[in-house]
Amino acid sequence: MAKILESVPNYSVGTDERIIEKIVEPFRRNNDVKLLDYSADSDHNRLVVTNVGSPDGLFESTLESIGIAVDRIDMNEHTGEHPRMGAVDVVPFTPVRNVTMEEAVELAKRLGKEAGNRFDLPVYLYEEAATKPERKNLAEIRKGEFEGFSEKITRPKWKPDFGPDKIHPTAGVTAIGARKPLVAFNVNLRTDELTIARDIARKIRHSNGGLRYCKAMGVDLEARGVVQVSMNMTDYTQTSLQQAFELIRVEANRHGVEIKGSEIVGLVPSDALIEVAKHYLRLEDFSADQVIENRLLEDL
Amino acid sequence: MAKILESVPNYSVGTDERIIEKIVEPFRRNNDVKLLDYSADSDHNRLVVTNVGSPDGLFESTLESIGIAVDRIDMNEHTGEHPRMGAVDVVPFTPVRNVTMEEAVELAKRLGKEAGNRFDLPVYLYEEAATKPERKNLAEIRKGEFEGFSEKITRPKWKPDFGPDKIHPTAGVTAIGARKPLVAFNVNLRTDELTIARDIARKIRHSNGGLRYCKAMGVDLEARGVVQVSMNMTDYTQTSLQQAFELIRVEANRHGVEIKGSEIVGLVPSDALIEVAKHYLRLEDFSADQVIENRLLEDL
Repeated sequence: MAKILESVPNYSVGTDERIIEKIVEPFRRNNDVKLLDYSADSDHNRLVVTNVGSPDGLFESTLESIGIAVDRIDMNEHTGEHPRMGAVDVVPFTPVRNVTMEEAVELAKRLGKEAGNRFDLPVYLYEEAATKPERKNLAEIRKGEFEGFSEKITRPKWKPDFGPDKIHPTAGVTAIGARKPLVAFNVNLRTDELTIARDIARKIRHSNGGLRYCKAMGVDLEARGVVQVSMNMTDYTQTSLQQAFELIRVEANRHGVEIKGSEIVGLVPSDALIEVAKHYLRLEDFSADQVIENRLLEDL
Repeated sequence: MAKILESVPNYSVGTDERIIEKIVEPFRRNNDVKLLDYSADSDHNRLVVTNVGSPDGLFESTLESIGIAVDRIDMNEHTGEHPRMGAVDVVPFTPVRNVTMEEAVELAKRLGKEAGNRFDLPVYLYEEAATKPERKNLAEIRKGEFEGFSEKITRPKWKPDFGPDKIHPTAGVTAIGARKPLVAFNVNLRTDELTIARDIARKIRHSNGGLRYCKAMGVDLEARGVVQVSMNMTDYTQTSLQQAFELIRVEANRHGVEIKGSEIVGLVPSDALIEVAKHYLRLEDFSADQVIENRLLEDL
């Protein structure tokens, strides 16, 4: 039963194909890692890479990839819409199979320590790997971005977990952490009134009294003439997709609006969808062992 | 991308642990086969083995296992509730991953031919592998059972596809075939009136005008004080679990009865449940590639 994690490192490069290819090459080459996807975006000027693999495979390939990005990317010349603080902006690890959250945290710490030492790179541990409560939230760490970090890093509160106490002159600082799998789940409404999507988003999200593991905002999909409740489900094992869906249905109904459809962006663990099926079919005594694919994966 | 099929051979032995262990041993030993489950039942006097594996791995291990069963089981001494016609009663192959139905049929024919020659065993190909329309349905082939086959096999219409034209004196005859994955899906009703379950079963099953790939019967679960609509979904890609569930809900409602819950017996492909989730969440543009487990299995 192989241990498998997902990692989704984000790099501050959006257009230079030569650098992008060099950064993903260590993942492509490693036999214990599968490069699932990578996409760069010139607006955000950002490269997002999705890998699955063993702890050691991900450690080695990510370390090598960080070295390449630190060498090649100069943050002094970087602009883009997405907030960022380093050449390797953030590296999240997520348990996928036969891996505990503790092991994912361990991997984040091991990588942070080695990258900090080897590349003179300040590293902050975040989310489940955070060493202080104020470092759990990546947005809190990133505040000030690359330009503000020369000063921020000198404050005792923001002393890095690994690496030197001053920013890397070209690569800035990096956040490495562990988190639960996140499902990007959007529900589209049969209306073009953005205020309705925003109102529903407020009702269902945790920050305003809604579901514990749901972040939500209202978005206008102008080209399609509908509005959307765009969600990040940050722990589908606790807050299910169907809870969010049904709560949106109830709130939309209050506005006399129907749900048009929904979409999942990017990857999703099969469990998240199987839970939905179990709910609506009222399945009793169902075990994950009954799913053929889970049995096949035991051998991986 | 490895080719993977499921096979569920049925043997006419229910209690003799020594023989049972010998029969499953070739599956246990083969590196290209994973023995998922085996269970024997003294009432039915029958052993059901579930394996997944490569075409070659399943060919070799099943052939060896058939040889052992033919050697050790004497049908002249066999009784049991389940209809049967041979020591190896039936061997169905089902495509699981990267395998077409044609390849499953090919495997059934290859195994049938070799088993027929090697063990002097008459073999009938059935379901998708059938060579005549009247041999598609296993129940049609099996009619007469072991006791009646000495005569039945002499009729030109029932000349075996492989092996000799007379029954094996101790092992009888065997059916080998290919079929789509079958999901055993039961829905329990909040009533103890068996007539209601029977009525609903009649309404939803194909044979009485219901869903194309649904077999159904009403069952009394006395110990639990409820009745059940017990179904075999014979092609969930065409007739979905949610279609059966919702149709049962409608018919039950007509009797003023609620659905208590449902259950899936044995294995189920993740696709069958993901389709349910897609339906109820109204998911648009969802691709099987978005399921992490499907990506992991690409490497198997």
